[in-house]
Amino acid sequence: MLEKLKEEVYRANLALVEYKLVLFTWGNVSGIDRGSGLFVIKPSGVDYSKLTPGDMVVMSLDGKKVEGELNPSSDTPTHMELYNRFPDIGGVAHTHSTFAVAYAQAARDIPPYGTTHADFAYGAIPCTRDLSQAEIEEEYELNTGRVIAECFENRGIDCNAVPAVLVHSHGPFTWGKNASDAAKNSAILEEVAKMAYLSSGLGAEEASKAIRKKHYMRKHGANAYYGQGGK
Amino acid sequence: MLEKLKEEVYRANLALVEYKLVLFTWGNVSGIDRGSGLFVIKPSGVDYSKLTPGDMVVMSLDGKKVEGELNPSSDTPTHMELYNRFPDIGGVAHTHSTFAVAYAQAARDIPPYGTTHADFAYGAIPCTRDLSQAEIEEEYELNTGRVIAECFENRGIDCNAVPAVLVHSHGPFTWGKNASDAAKNSAILEEVAKMAYLSSGLGAEEASKAIRKKHYMRKHGANAYYGQGGK
Amino acid sequence: MLEKLKEEVYRANLALVEYKLVLFTWGNVSGIDRGSGLFVIKPSGVDYSKLTPGDMVVMSLDGKKVEGELNPSSDTPTHMELYNRFPDIGGVAHTHSTFAVAYAQAARDIPPYGTTHADFAYGAIPCTRDLSQAEIEEEYELNTGRVIAECFENRGIDCNAVPAVLVHSHGPFTWGKNASDAAKNSAILEEVAKMAYLSSGLGAEEASKAIRKKHYMRKHGANAYYGQGGK
Amino acid sequence: MLEKLKEEVYRANLALVEYKLVLFTWGNVSGIDRGSGLFVIKPSGVDYSKLTPGDMVVMSLDGKKVEGELNPSSDTPTHMELYNRFPDIGGVAHTHSTFAVAYAQAARDIPPYGTTHADFAYGAIPCTRDLSQAEIEEEYELNTGRVIAECFENRGIDCNAVPAVLVHSHGPFTWGKNASDAAKNSAILEEVAKMAYLSSGLGAEEASKAIRKKHYMRKHGANAYYGQGGK
Repeated sequence: MLEKLKEEVYRANLALVEYKLVLFTWGNVSGIDRGSGLFVIKPSGVDYSKLTPGDMVVMSLDGKKVEGELNPSSDTPTHMELYNRFPDIGGVAHTHSTFAVAYAQAARDIPPYGTTHADFAYGAIPCTRDLSQAEIEEEYELNTGRVIAECFENRGIDCNAVPAVLVHSHGPFTWGKNASDAAKNSAILEEVAKMAYLSSGLGAEEASKAIRKKHYMRKHGANAYYGQGGK
Repeated sequence: MLEKLKEEVYRANLALVEYKLVLFTWGNVSGIDRGSGLFVIKPSGVDYSKLTPGDMVVMSLDGKKVEGELNPSSDTPTHMELYNRFPDIGGVAHTHSTFAVAYAQAARDIPPYGTTHADFAYGAIPCTRDLSQAEIEEEYELNTGRVIAECFENRGIDCNAVPAVLVHSHGPFTWGKNASDAAKNSAILEEVAKMAYLSSGLGAEEASKAIRKKHYMRKHGANAYYGQGGK
Repeated sequence: MLEKLKEEVYRANLALVEYKLVLFTWGNVSGIDRGSGLFVIKPSGVDYSKLTPGDMVVMSLDGKKVEGELNPSSDTPTHMELYNRFPDIGGVAHTHSTFAVAYAQAARDIPPYGTTHADFAYGAIPCTRDLSQAEIEEEYELNTGRVIAECFENRGIDCNAVPAVLVHSHGPFTWGKNASDAAKNSAILEEVAKMAYLSSGLGAEEASKAIRKKHYMRKHGANAYYGQGGK
Repeated sequence: MLEKLKEEVYRANLALVEYKLVLFTWGNVSGIDRGSGLFVIKPSGVDYSKLTPGDMVVMSLDGKKVEGELNPSSDTPTHMELYNRFPDIGGVAHTHSTFAVAYAQAARDIPPYGTTHADFAYGAIPCTRDLSQAEIEEEYELNTGRVIAECFENRGIDCNAVPAVLVHSHGPFTWGKNASDAAKNSAILEEVAKMAYLSSGLGAEEASKAIRKKHYMRKHGANAYYGQGGK
C-alpha cells in the first residue's frame, strides 16, 4: 500500500544524506497521505546505504503500525503529533544537523538576521521549553510533539510561515508540503543556523521588519514573484 | 540572439555551484554585451541541474525582457542598475555565501586585514546602509542597486578597485570584466570574508597601507608583474 | 594467525579515513581476541593507501610482538593498557580529530549539552590530568593508558557508559565492542565535540539529567527501543 | 635539465590542491638541487589544471632564470632567500591556507598547545615583524625572505625544528627536505593552526615542555621510534 508515498519518503530520507545533514542513522523523514490518514516513515536505526522503499513503515494517526516488518523510527510519535496538530503539513523531517543542534542545546531561538532567513521563514525559528521529568519519563516522543505544538500556540506562530522548530537540548524538526520539501527545509535551516551563528559573533541585530516581510512575501505570499509561478 | 554570451553566463552560473557558493537556487550571474546594451541573466528559481544555455533571459538596460521564455532572476533590476551605474563592468554575480552573508547581516565592512584581501580589492569591502521602508516596498530590487551605487559614490570607492559589496541584511554582489570573472570574484570574496572572520577573532588590525598597495598593484596595477602578462 | 581479526582491524583503520578523522598517518585502531588474549594493531607511520590486512601487527597483553614484520603503532602500549584495565572492550581507536583535540588541548571535559551526546555517552567525556615529567620520560605511552584508567577510576566513570576520553594536551581515545565500533565512536565523538564547541559559544548549559538518562537508556539500556533489536 | 626535479616540484604543487590548501592559483612550491645550486619553481598565475612538469621554471640562487618559457612565481625571491639562508632545506611551499592566514593577519605566533603541534615543530610557529614601507617598495619579495630569516635568527629558532613561519599580514611559508615534504608541511600547519584557533577559543595554555619534547623527539630525534625507521 502507498507504494508511491513510500518511494517519495525513501528518496527524502536519502536526500538528508546528500545534503550532508546526517551522521550514521541520525535522521528521519516521513510523509502523509491525508486522504487515508496514514503516514509513512523510515524504520529505526537502519543504515541509509541498506534502506529500500519497501522498508518504509506505514502508521496511522493514532499510533498503530499498519504495514511494515521493521520498527518505525523511535521519533515516530513526534511526527504523528505534528501531523495531528498541524493539519496543513504533508511531510516532517528530523536531523541532528550541527549548527541547528547548537542553537537547540543553547536553548536559543534563531533570530531573523537577514534575507536568507526571511526567504525561508517569517520570524525567528523558536526553541521549545525543556520537557519536565514526567514528560520525559512517560510518552517522551509524543510529549516532544506536544511541546512543539504548545510553543507555536503560546507564541502565536503560524506553522505554515515558520516550517521549523528547535527542541530544547535536542535538535531541529522541519516540515513542508511533502516529505521532499521537509527534507529540503532541514538543509535550509542548517544553513540559516550557521549564518546566524557567524552573524551573532559579529554583533548582528535582527533585520528590519520591512525587509523580512518583503523577502518572505516575494517568495511565499499571494503575489509571489520569485521563480516561474505556474509554469 | 547573443548565443555565445548565453553560453558564458550559463557556465558562470554553474561555476557558483562548483565553487560551493550556492544552496539550491540561491545565486545568479549575468553578463552584458556593451555593444547592443543587452544583458543576459539566469532565470528565477530554476534548479542548476536543469538549467540550459537556452534558458538564459535577455534583458535591456531599461528593464525590458528582449528574449526568453522564463522569468528572469528576481534580482534582475539590481544587476541592471549596476550595469547602468558602473559602465566598465561586464558581469555581475550574486550569492548568499555563508561568511559574506554573516558580514552583511552584521552590517559590517570586511576590513583589509592582509594580502589575500589586497590581491583582490584595494580597501575594505563596504556594506551598504539599510534600505528605508519606502525603498523596500516600491522597486525593492532596483533600489538595492541604487543603494550600492550610492555607497560607492558617497564613500569615494572606485568600483574597479573594489569589485564587491555587501548589501545590508542581505548578502554579497560581485562584478568583473565578464560573467566568469564576476563568479570567480564571488568565490574570492567568500574566502576573504572567512579569513577576516577568523582574523577578527584573533584580534587582527588592518594591514599597512604600503603592503596593501604593493599587493594590489603587483597584480592589478599598470606595472603588474603577477602572472604571465600578455602571454 | 587471527586473519579475520586482521581484516576487521584493517577495515576499521580505513574507516577513520572515510570518516575524515585523520590527516596523513595520524590515527590507529586495534581489536582484541579475548580468547587468546592477543590484539591486532596498525603498524606505525604507514600510509593508509598502502596498508594491507597482512601489515597488521599481532601483540600480546604484556607488550610482546607475536607476529608481524612492521613496527606496531607507537601508541600500542596505550591500547594494551586499555585492554588490560577495561576488560569488556573489544576495540580501541585513536585519532587527532580537530574538535576533540581542541578540548584535549584546553584540558576541558566535553559537557553533556544535549541528546546527541546522551545517545553516545552517559555523562561528560572526561579529560585526563596532565602526565608528570617522570611519566612522560619513562614508559610514556603506557603511562598514557594508566592515566586514562586512573581518570575513570577516580571519577567513578563506567567505561562502558562513556566510550571515550580526552588525553590532556594530546587528543581522543575511543573504544567499543570491536575495532569497527571503536572507529565509529571516534566519528561520533568528533561530531559531539563540534556541537559542544558551538553550543558553548552560544552559552549552553548541561542538559537535564532526565533527558540525558532517557536518551542513553532508549538506545543502550536493558529496555532499549531504538533500532531493530534482535532482528 | 633537472627533469626529475621538475616532475617532483610539479607533483608537489598539485598536492597543495589535493590537500585543499589553495583557491585558484594561490600557492607555489619549489625544490632545489643542492649539487648544481639550481631550484625549480611553479610559474606565476597558471591554473593548476593546465600545469605540466615542463612549465616549471629553473632559477639560480642569485635570482637568474636559467630555463623556462614562463615567468616564475612572483614569490620566487622569497624562496631563493630561504634556500640561501637555510642551507639544509630542500623544498619550500607557500599557500594562503585559511587558518594559518588568520594567525598571520592577526600577527600572532601559533602557540604549541599540544602533541599534534609537537609532532610537527618544536616550539611556537613564529610570526615575523611587519615589513617597513621601504622594504615593501623595493625588493619586496626578497625582503620577505630576509625578514623570515631575521625572525629565526633574532629569536634563536632552528629552522630544522620549526619548518614553518607566518609572514605578518600575509600568510605561511613552510619548508622540508624536498618539495613534497614542504607541501605536506603546509597541510600539517593548516591543521595545527585550526586546532590552535579552536583551542584558544576554549582557553587553552601551552602544553608542558616535557610532553612537547617527548613528541618531537619520538618522531624527529636521534632515537625516534615513530614509523618504520630504515625499513
